[in-house]
Amino acid sequence: MMTLDSARPSRHKARMKRLTAAAALLALLPIQSFAEQAAPDPLSFVDPMIGTGPEGHTFPGATAPFGMVQLSPDTDATCQIRDCYDHAAGYSYNDPTIQGFSHTHFSGAGHSDLGDILVMPQVGEVKLDPGDPKQPGSGYRQRFDHATEKASPGYYAVTLADSGIRAELTAGTRVGIHRYSFPAGKDAHLLLDLRSSLYDYPGKILWSGLHLRHDGTLTGFRETRGWAPGRKLYFAMRFSAPLKGHAFLDRDEKVAYKGFQAPGRGSDALAEKLGKALEARLDFGALTGPLEVRVALSGVDEAGAVANLDAEGAGFDAVRARTEGEWRKALGALQIEAPAPMRTNLYTALYHSLLAPSVWSDVDGRYRGPDDQVHSAKDFTFRSTFSLWDTFRAQHPLLTLVQPDRTNSDIVKSLVASRKHSPHGILPVWQFHGRETWTMIGYHAVPVIADAYMKGVGDFDANEALDAMVASAEYAPYGGLGDYMKLGYVAIDREPEAASKTVEYAYDDWTIARMAEKMGRKDIADRFYKRAGYWRNSFDAKTGWLRARKTDGSFRTPFDPTAINYGSDYTEGNAWQYSWFVPQDQAGLFRILGGDAKTIAKLDAMFDYDISKLDYSHAEDIAGLIGQYIHGNEPSHHVAYLYAYAGAPWRTQERLKQIVDSQYKPTPDGLSGNDDLGQMSAWLVFTGLGFYPVAPGSNQYVIGRPFVDRAVLNLPGGKRFTVETAGLSDANRYVGKVELNGKPLTRSWISDAEIRGGGTLRFTMQAKPDTAWGKVPGARPYSRSTDGAR
Amino acid sequence: MMTLDSARPSRHKARMKRLTAAAALLALLPIQSFAEQAAPDPLSFVDPMIGTGPEGHTFPGATAPFGMVQLSPDTDATCQIRDCYDHAAGYSYNDPTIQGFSHTHFSGAGHSDLGDILVMPQVGEVKLDPGDPKQPGSGYRQRFDHATEKASPGYYAVTLADSGIRAELTAGTRVGIHRYSFPAGKDAHLLLDLRSSLYDYPGKILWSGLHLRHDGTLTGFRETRGWAPGRKLYFAMRFSAPLKGHAFLDRDEKVAYKGFQAPGRGSDALAEKLGKALEARLDFGALTGPLEVRVALSGVDEAGAVANLDAEGAGFDAVRARTEGEWRKALGALQIEAPAPMRTNLYTALYHSLLAPSVWSDVDGRYRGPDDQVHSAKDFTFRSTFSLWDTFRAQHPLLTLVQPDRTNSDIVKSLVASRKHSPHGILPVWQFHGRETWTMIGYHAVPVIADAYMKGVGDFDANEALDAMVASAEYAPYGGLGDYMKLGYVAIDREPEAASKTVEYAYDDWTIARMAEKMGRKDIADRFYKRAGYWRNSFDAKTGWLRARKTDGSFRTPFDPTAINYGSDYTEGNAWQYSWFVPQDQAGLFRILGGDAKTIAKLDAMFDYDISKLDYSHAEDIAGLIGQYIHGNEPSHHVAYLYAYAGAPWRTQERLKQIVDSQYKPTPDGLSGNDDLGQMSAWLVFTGLGFYPVAPGSNQYVIGRPFVDRAVLNLPGGKRFTVETAGLSDANRYVGKVELNGKPLTRSWISDAEIRGGGTLRFTMQAKPDTAWGKVPGARPYSRSTDGAR
Repeated sequence: MMTLDSARPSRHKARMKRLTAAAALLALLPIQSFAEQAAPDPLSFVDPMIGTGPEGHTFPGATAPFGMVQLSPDTDATCQIRDCYDHAAGYSYNDPTIQGFSHTHFSGAGHSDLGDILVMPQVGEVKLDPGDPKQPGSGYRQRFDHATEKASPGYYAVTLADSGIRAELTAGTRVGIHRYSFPAGKDAHLLLDLRSSLYDYPGKILWSGLHLRHDGTLTGFRETRGWAPGRKLYFAMRFSAPLKGHAFLDRDEKVAYKGFQAPGRGSDALAEKLGKALEARLDFGALTGPLEVRVALSGVDEAGAVANLDAEGAGFDAVRARTEGEWRKALGALQIEAPAPMRTNLYTALYHSLLAPSVWSDVDGRYRGPDDQVHSAKDFTFRSTFSLWDTFRAQHPLLTLVQPDRTNSDIVKSLVASRKHSPHGILPVWQFHGRETWTMIGYHAVPVIADAYMKGVGDFDANEALDAMVASAEYAPYGGLGDYMKLGYVAIDREPEAASKTVEYAYDDWTIARMAEKMGRKDIADRFYKRAGYWRNSFDAKTGWLRARKTDGSFRTPFDPTAINYGSDYTEGNAWQYSWFVPQDQAGLFRILGGDAKTIAKLDAMFDYDISKLDYSHAEDIAGLIGQYIHGNEPSHHVAYLYAYAGAPWRTQERLKQIVDSQYKPTPDGLSGNDDLGQMSAWLVFTGLGFYPVAPGSNQYVIGRPFVDRAVLNLPGGKRFTVETAGLSDANRYVGKVELNGKPLTRSWISDAEIRGGGTLRFTMQAKPDTAWGKVPGARPYSRSTDGAR
Repeated sequence: MMTLDSARPSRHKARMKRLTAAAALLALLPIQSFAEQAAPDPLSFVDPMIGTGPEGHTFPGATAPFGMVQLSPDTDATCQIRDCYDHAAGYSYNDPTIQGFSHTHFSGAGHSDLGDILVMPQVGEVKLDPGDPKQPGSGYRQRFDHATEKASPGYYAVTLADSGIRAELTAGTRVGIHRYSFPAGKDAHLLLDLRSSLYDYPGKILWSGLHLRHDGTLTGFRETRGWAPGRKLYFAMRFSAPLKGHAFLDRDEKVAYKGFQAPGRGSDALAEKLGKALEARLDFGALTGPLEVRVALSGVDEAGAVANLDAEGAGFDAVRARTEGEWRKALGALQIEAPAPMRTNLYTALYHSLLAPSVWSDVDGRYRGPDDQVHSAKDFTFRSTFSLWDTFRAQHPLLTLVQPDRTNSDIVKSLVASRKHSPHGILPVWQFHGRETWTMIGYHAVPVIADAYMKGVGDFDANEALDAMVASAEYAPYGGLGDYMKLGYVAIDREPEAASKTVEYAYDDWTIARMAEKMGRKDIADRFYKRAGYWRNSFDAKTGWLRARKTDGSFRTPFDPTAINYGSDYTEGNAWQYSWFVPQDQAGLFRILGGDAKTIAKLDAMFDYDISKLDYSHAEDIAGLIGQYIHGNEPSHHVAYLYAYAGAPWRTQERLKQIVDSQYKPTPDGLSGNDDLGQMSAWLVFTGLGFYPVAPGSNQYVIGRPFVDRAVLNLPGGKRFTVETAGLSDANRYVGKVELNGKPLTRSWISDAEIRGGGTLRFTMQAKPDTAWGKVPGARPYSRSTDGAR
């Protein structure tokens, strides 16, 4: 049964064929440990092109797990902010040209930045501007054919059609390696365009520099004022062939004052150039073999970039082999057997879940922190790129299972170090390259830390972490927290998106209480359990909607539960989505809604809402709609699992089938919304396995239904947790028998300890629902009441 | 005789009274060691206001010797480049208002920058813009009366008339301390304007930041693109009274894209702000005593600034006392008795000679170097602010006498370290804050190092230094050096100011040869002695002028020896001044000119030239004219001493009297040209003592005539070199008897060893010239022929 695919790098096409016969066979085979078999190469099941279509915002380029360098083609970086949405990761699948290869990208972000240090190989006359995508040859951008592309973990290749140059990319943690094969006999050039940036706008490039060192290393830096203000990035670059010539160009207007010129006036062949609009033309003459360009980044300084290059900048094949080995190890945490499209979806989702929080410290441990100062990570690797509003939900919980030790220690220590060096003394909100962007809402570093602590994952100082969590939750200037602490809710007349903030703060507070309680810090637990009930203060029991309250206590009017606008009561959503966000007290919510039946009816109304008359095209991040359920954005992610809290897990099973079938495809347009640094993907990994962490911090996973025939989660100490599914098919939409370690499981959730201890969860699928399973209150998932009963 | 002045801080007024009776008395008194007397306070003889008039470009503020912080009032920083000339040091004596107090200034530079971190105290409604100097009250600038000013080494005070605030400044090496006494009962505020900068222009401020730390320390930074490109400066600031409120303001246009806002939206009371146009308003309420503001700088990072503040940021009175002690020690290297105006001129000149090269490394040794990277000075203090084209002539040679040990070690090690970290691999040309500005010509770090080496001053690795000197002299891309090495001259059709460059390179080369020869590096000595003769290749023997040659060997026409223009054959001068620049071979030059008589006639023609029909008002740095002799700029500085090389030292004596009387006054407008980081002043110190280093590297000082009654140079190991003058008066313009250690001195020069060994040089002045003294060739100063005879 291991003959499904060859182990060569995956391609994004021709994956649609369902190997149903093999899948059916699989279900009948005796259970056999994967370890006893010749392991398949998980790299062959990953297709990095998934999500590169308009909504996913993933990139197809080369990266190591959690790589500082994420080296990828940019199909267009000439857009300006509001027109850039499709190019958040640089590459948009439907674009006809590639502008160049740059070293930093977000995987799936909604807003964007990065695209640093763009390199484009050229032959013949060197073009200095990217040119118009609609006019081939008008600049240095070149056409390409998707048929020439190869993308797999740690590797990307494409042929640039206008020149015939074959471009290959690979990456180590802090290095990117380019390999360019130029047409024989033609002079080879590289253009380095330090002007190019994703989500550009006038004045974004503050300053940049190029230094050609005596040993032939090209170093430089760029400071930008983009999504992250005053972000600094340094690089060092070496070439496998000697530099025959070079020019450093400043494309900016000249400064109109009595100028003092560097040596070599009248020439651009300088050893150093500084300015706001720099380019480097690098000439290699006619080469007899491929040119390798080895590039390291650093957030500290150029010396740091050189040290990173010294440490990691080996030859292309060596770096590729090392990174592929790292991916085999990382992806090997989960061994999945499933129908081929789902297997590709799931392995690719796992891959996409392992890109952030990416490494930001240098090999020597130094990093630039939120205060723009250089610090040193003594016993951990500093990680950044925290898209926490998205990733606290499922991506971080997934990391506690597939990267339990080092990664989670790094993450918590990085969060706590960031807080220590924050000018505000609080944990990151949306941080990258060490800098705070103040994007989205909440203080969701808190549930990330609490979840790791509650599960006993990672090695960190819990007291220091708890201090940081409390400080973040009590920082009055942040997002209406002063009012929240005083009034019990964020007031909409003083702070936008007040309803969303209130409920997210309350949930975050509950995770503080959980952790403090476990630590024996009763004073803190009491204080934050109380705050965990503040969601009620923004819930309008009369109408059954979460709504924003004003300082005077009244709800804001007019009120339309379908409206999605900036400045509304909600964040990237409306009352339909946000009224369900009480992970810490779904039982309390459901009582307000009038009990199980009414709750289920309201959930159904959400999924079945006729949205044909609504227009949400003005709103970013609103995609993947099933009625008012918006799978393309995070506030909906837990909602399908809420039927289980209402005693109807069979309805969850139905909805999951509906969502998975409509929202994920193994194609470039296969993600219905932004992947958001792995959150969309992590949702699929959990859902595919048959359970989902609705309330991180609770140590419970709500059982949905599996989409795999079999999956093995390899845990520390050689332990394994196996999911087995009998009778998986399109027709068998419902879970029948559920057995944990051979015994029937009557509740609709499993605990983290049950997974982490190893064992087997066996599902038997069937065509008809089991409406009795999980119905009695004692069988339902965790739902701590916050209405006084604790 | 020590009752001339009290020891209180000097004032710039009422200094004109000549104490001729005391001076005459002094000449008659038996010689008595200064050490046996109650020493006068040298601080009382320094008037920092000298040179703050339009031409001198000095500043009146507070600084320690060679201080990183030079804290001084800026009377106007709102000019834009070309209109800024009078405000090169921030303060221009005739301005009616003070805009604020900033922490960095050049003393006497021709071009400018700095004026960093401007602070202005205010009462009442806080004004955010400086306003129009012509409209009092239109902004935060305030009127002042010179009568309220006090300026002395390490101390400055003024009363701001519009508010009644008394402002006092003092400084340590890396700190500036402000003390503001606010009118009783009024709320005290400070405005910190990070937009303010000397020689401003649109886009100069690249980025800046403000961070209010939890301990109340305000830190921040600024990156500017001024004279030095991409310069970074960090600061840390503490207050003696608690901060009652604050606002961080960004006065820039808002960035027009979907913005993400820091906490506290709607409020400027943030803990952090980043932007291009920042201000901080700091509120202290009504105070019962003065407010002290303690500020440290760093070129490394904010942590460096905090560490500098921790190390040096004591209370106002303590810092002032410490710095005054440092000044007493530094000024004590030279004890001067002279008529009061001359004594003030000389002590002030010595003070102005001890401000640069200023300290740039932090207390922990870290500094930001020419490559914009942070380095660590292991066994020295890194100095920057090298105005080498000016200071190689007399200011550095003066430092070899008055600061022989640590300062010269620091200087040479800093130059060599700068070369090591230079992207070009060469020594500094015009460096400040670690960054190269490529201002002026030559590679005059070379004679600075060679002069120190030849004199045995300082402790440094001579081989490493020589390598750096040779590398600088052979870096082809720099200022036509490729042509110079190939053709024997810089070619004017390929490089501007080619004649000046050729002769300055040839002199610099000679100092390399001298040092190499002493080190036994014969190959290098031979190569550079040959190059030392290249001045001949740009000298037109037919016309008797230094002129620029083209690549084809012809001299450029048309030729006008009086023309002064940018892009001419010369640098800030014309053929009249530059034809005398052959310090290494005046004899060779004089032979071309036709011998002593014709040389003397040409010198006379220069001084006596009728310039009434010429207009040089378009040229910066051309001031202090005596015919075509331009004392306000450096190319003329050695020329009066050249009569001695032609066997007529009595003519030098005449010219020196003429120059000193007309070019130096103990008044704000008392310097006829830019002080140029102490070069104008060092000229006066040497000339006042009676000798001058015409050719640094030669170890000879050419004897002119003294302007002191008596001066003692205190040397290491308790040695003293004393100058005594009998019969000093306006009438006695000529030197009669010259005795060295009691024996008649028949030559018109003394050696460095004779000074450094200690002893007494005694002059007897007379009304009639001694035309025979110093006339025979063997009695004339060093003048190694470069026409083959070595």
